[in-house]
Amino acid sequence: MIERCWTRFLFEAIRRMEAQTTYPPVAAASPQGPPQPPSLEHLVIQAELGQDEMVRTGIAALHPADTAELLNVLEEPEVKFKVFGFLAAPQAAEVLSLVSAHTQDDLVERLSDDGLGDLIEYLDSDDATDLLASLSARRAKAVLDEVPQDLSDEVTQLLRYPEDTAGGIMQVEYMAVSQGTRIDQATEMIRSRSDEIPDIHSVFIVNNTNRLVGVLPLRKFILARPADLVETVMDQQVISVRADLDQEQVAQMFKKYDLISLPVVDSEGCLLGRITVDDVVDVMEEEATEDIYKLAGLDEEEEVLDSPWQSIRLRLPWLALNLITTTLSALVIAFFEGTIQQIAIAAAFMTIVAAQGGNAGVQTLTVIVRGIALGEVPLTQTKRVLVKELTIALGNGLALGAAAGVVAYLWKGDATLGIVLALALLANLIIAAFVGSVVPLTLRRVGVDPAVASNVFVTACTDIFGFLSFLGILTLFLQFI
Amino acid sequence: MIERCWTRFLFEAIRRMEAQTTYPPVAAASPQGPPQPPSLEHLVIQAELGQDEMVRTGIAALHPADTAELLNVLEEPEVKFKVFGFLAAPQAAEVLSLVSAHTQDDLVERLSDDGLGDLIEYLDSDDATDLLASLSARRAKAVLDEVPQDLSDEVTQLLRYPEDTAGGIMQVEYMAVSQGTRIDQATEMIRSRSDEIPDIHSVFIVNNTNRLVGVLPLRKFILARPADLVETVMDQQVISVRADLDQEQVAQMFKKYDLISLPVVDSEGCLLGRITVDDVVDVMEEEATEDIYKLAGLDEEEEVLDSPWQSIRLRLPWLALNLITTTLSALVIAFFEGTIQQIAIAAAFMTIVAAQGGNAGVQTLTVIVRGIALGEVPLTQTKRVLVKELTIALGNGLALGAAAGVVAYLWKGDATLGIVLALALLANLIIAAFVGSVVPLTLRRVGVDPAVASNVFVTACTDIFGFLSFLGILTLFLQFI
Repeated sequence: MIERCWTRFLFEAIRRMEAQTTYPPVAAASPQGPPQPPSLEHLVIQAELGQDEMVRTGIAALHPADTAELLNVLEEPEVKFKVFGFLAAPQAAEVLSLVSAHTQDDLVERLSDDGLGDLIEYLDSDDATDLLASLSARRAKAVLDEVPQDLSDEVTQLLRYPEDTAGGIMQVEYMAVSQGTRIDQATEMIRSRSDEIPDIHSVFIVNNTNRLVGVLPLRKFILARPADLVETVMDQQVISVRADLDQEQVAQMFKKYDLISLPVVDSEGCLLGRITVDDVVDVMEEEATEDIYKLAGLDEEEEVLDSPWQSIRLRLPWLALNLITTTLSALVIAFFEGTIQQIAIAAAFMTIVAAQGGNAGVQTLTVIVRGIALGEVPLTQTKRVLVKELTIALGNGLALGAAAGVVAYLWKGDATLGIVLALALLANLIIAAFVGSVVPLTLRRVGVDPAVASNVFVTACTDIFGFLSFLGILTLFLQFI
Repeated sequence: MIERCWTRFLFEAIRRMEAQTTYPPVAAASPQGPPQPPSLEHLVIQAELGQDEMVRTGIAALHPADTAELLNVLEEPEVKFKVFGFLAAPQAAEVLSLVSAHTQDDLVERLSDDGLGDLIEYLDSDDATDLLASLSARRAKAVLDEVPQDLSDEVTQLLRYPEDTAGGIMQVEYMAVSQGTRIDQATEMIRSRSDEIPDIHSVFIVNNTNRLVGVLPLRKFILARPADLVETVMDQQVISVRADLDQEQVAQMFKKYDLISLPVVDSEGCLLGRITVDDVVDVMEEEATEDIYKLAGLDEEEEVLDSPWQSIRLRLPWLALNLITTTLSALVIAFFEGTIQQIAIAAAFMTIVAAQGGNAGVQTLTVIVRGIALGEVPLTQTKRVLVKELTIALGNGLALGAAAGVVAYLWKGDATLGIVLALALLANLIIAAFVGSVVPLTLRRVGVDPAVASNVFVTACTDIFGFLSFLGILTLFLQFI
């Protein structure tokens, strides 16, 4: 109870701060108009204090996306489930498709197969498929037994496509008419199916073998005459994708061609489904997060509000890998123990070489991984990128090597140390550019995500080579000069 | 010429490889239908060999987005400009709004004020504003003098909004009708303005003082009866944003509420413009790139196909900063020179402590910066996140400290070294969690982008504290035990 009061006090204090920040509170979305829904913070407090009736009334006025956010923020799975229980089935279904993976697990494991089946009937086929794909095979089968046969068939069909392909993110709710249809007939069909497919942006036109032959944006329905045939007013230059195209490339196409919806076809050009921009927006964020995470040595499944134990489980393997690579670089240093005994300050300078190489290598890696992800590095430009990075390493290496060498000389009054530092730094920057560019470019060529060449790997290389080059060159100088 | 032949050979080889990869060539977009446009690689070769007529014919069949990609890939500014000159004015204008910043600079500096003014007339107000904002104030003024007064006024108005706010990305081409309009009247208005506003997704409804009171998706026009008043069929729960909202938060709203277009209003709720999802897709990628770049110590302006000199200019300051911080950590090591002279192998173990802290700190920083960017860390959850990260550090620190300590003991047969390594590693992981979470959370609270707490800063802290803790604890052990 003391904990709760403290939390309450914290919330109040933060709410007052928030009034001065630019973080958009839920209510700021529409500056005028209908009465404002309650704030998220109030609902969290009410839910945690068990003020059920106030929560029930409060969430009735919320957008499903806001209700999903409320459930994500609540800590106790039991409280989440209770609040979720206040929703009518159609809202509950939508909210279930919007919550984080973590919250979805909490809710789904508390729902009966029957109850989950009922909710799935309200979902679009792509959301239903995503939800079922996140269940165990056994649970998915049990839930599918509870839904009507046609939906079950649709979902089973969609589940066959790999999750990260066009087929894996498409939905089968779309509007298609044959090319000989008149505008007024097509309009009537849209009208009759408007409940089933609420977010139509364009109508696909197919021939008698279901091949996609054109597309008609909704706007054109308003401009066309009722008696026109759709094939005379449709756009023939229709952009479509094969079901097996990677979702990252689907997202690139949406971005490049400014699309709102995109038809998905099979190898014969027959219409299978469509992808809408709202799903692609999610794909883009997912892919960006995946890249950022991989670069940092993180598992893409981690979420910022996970439990600490979950995060330890996901991060420890990467840290253990880093422990192994860093032990290798420690072995390199141990090999030169004699040199360090002779010149102890070498232990300080070698870390400068390693750190500079690490920073430069991560810069190169990041530019290239992001460039590949955004489709800005065509395969034809591989050589140009590599030459560029080596040129940069040469330029920066000369500048930084000279600076570091002069500082070392002024500090210790030892020209040898200065020269060794400058040479080792230049060499390590060139290695950094090489590792940071060749590794992701090669991974891409062999079909592996370039982001797995993470900072952990690049800095391992620059550490090992940094220590090796500085201590190695120094040892040579000591022996021969 | 030899260089060109070599390039040609390379292109051919790569094109053959590409046939086996999943990278989508331009032509793969529509598997059947109208004749295929020429491949990008062919056009690049033709342009570089000066086969002007083939290029001119080739690009006539291209989507403007593909023409933009062609221009981005071409290396010589003069060749870019020549190919650009083959386009008719409306296409040229669209292509100019789609090319990379780098290519845009190349083209714009070769266009006359008059020529640029002519192109700008074909652009939507948001694209025209972006283009003018990228020019020098003097050039922008000269170009604005060449365009019609009403467009010049519109753009001047839009230029007043900061670039990264809702106002900075909105366009003033939208469709608004007053609440008393009938559906058939509104339809007629859409029809008459369809050339001017090609991508209408919904019509905004305003009252007699231009206050936004509702929204009517195009789909509803098809469902409504011609004599209905728009106010009786419109959605009253309209989501809108103030013009001063940050673009990152605008993008979060599009993602959260699955929007296609979003009206922008002033503090009185009066309609100013609209933002469409295709612009938000660009904002999302821009923001993700910005975060990834900042984390890696890169300037957001850098592009993967920039010239090396441009990249050196942008990366050198960050590397120089790293040189300073790493010199500080070298000073820490120098302070313990005596300890290293006594136990040279300490120089190897201290790098393990620093590297593990760096990896763990970057993990924490990345999860938090990304979580904040995606709106998954409400201000109310700050304490929870901090407690979580410290718990993770304790767990991972105990596991890794124990593992490293045992390895050190087995390797050198020295229990003291093992204990010191374990203690220092645990301490550094806790510092890493603290720095990696408190710094970005604090930056967010004071209104600074959390991503500026980059890897460079975090690893500087973990290096310095890593060396300090290991060498410090070791020195204490040596003196007192």
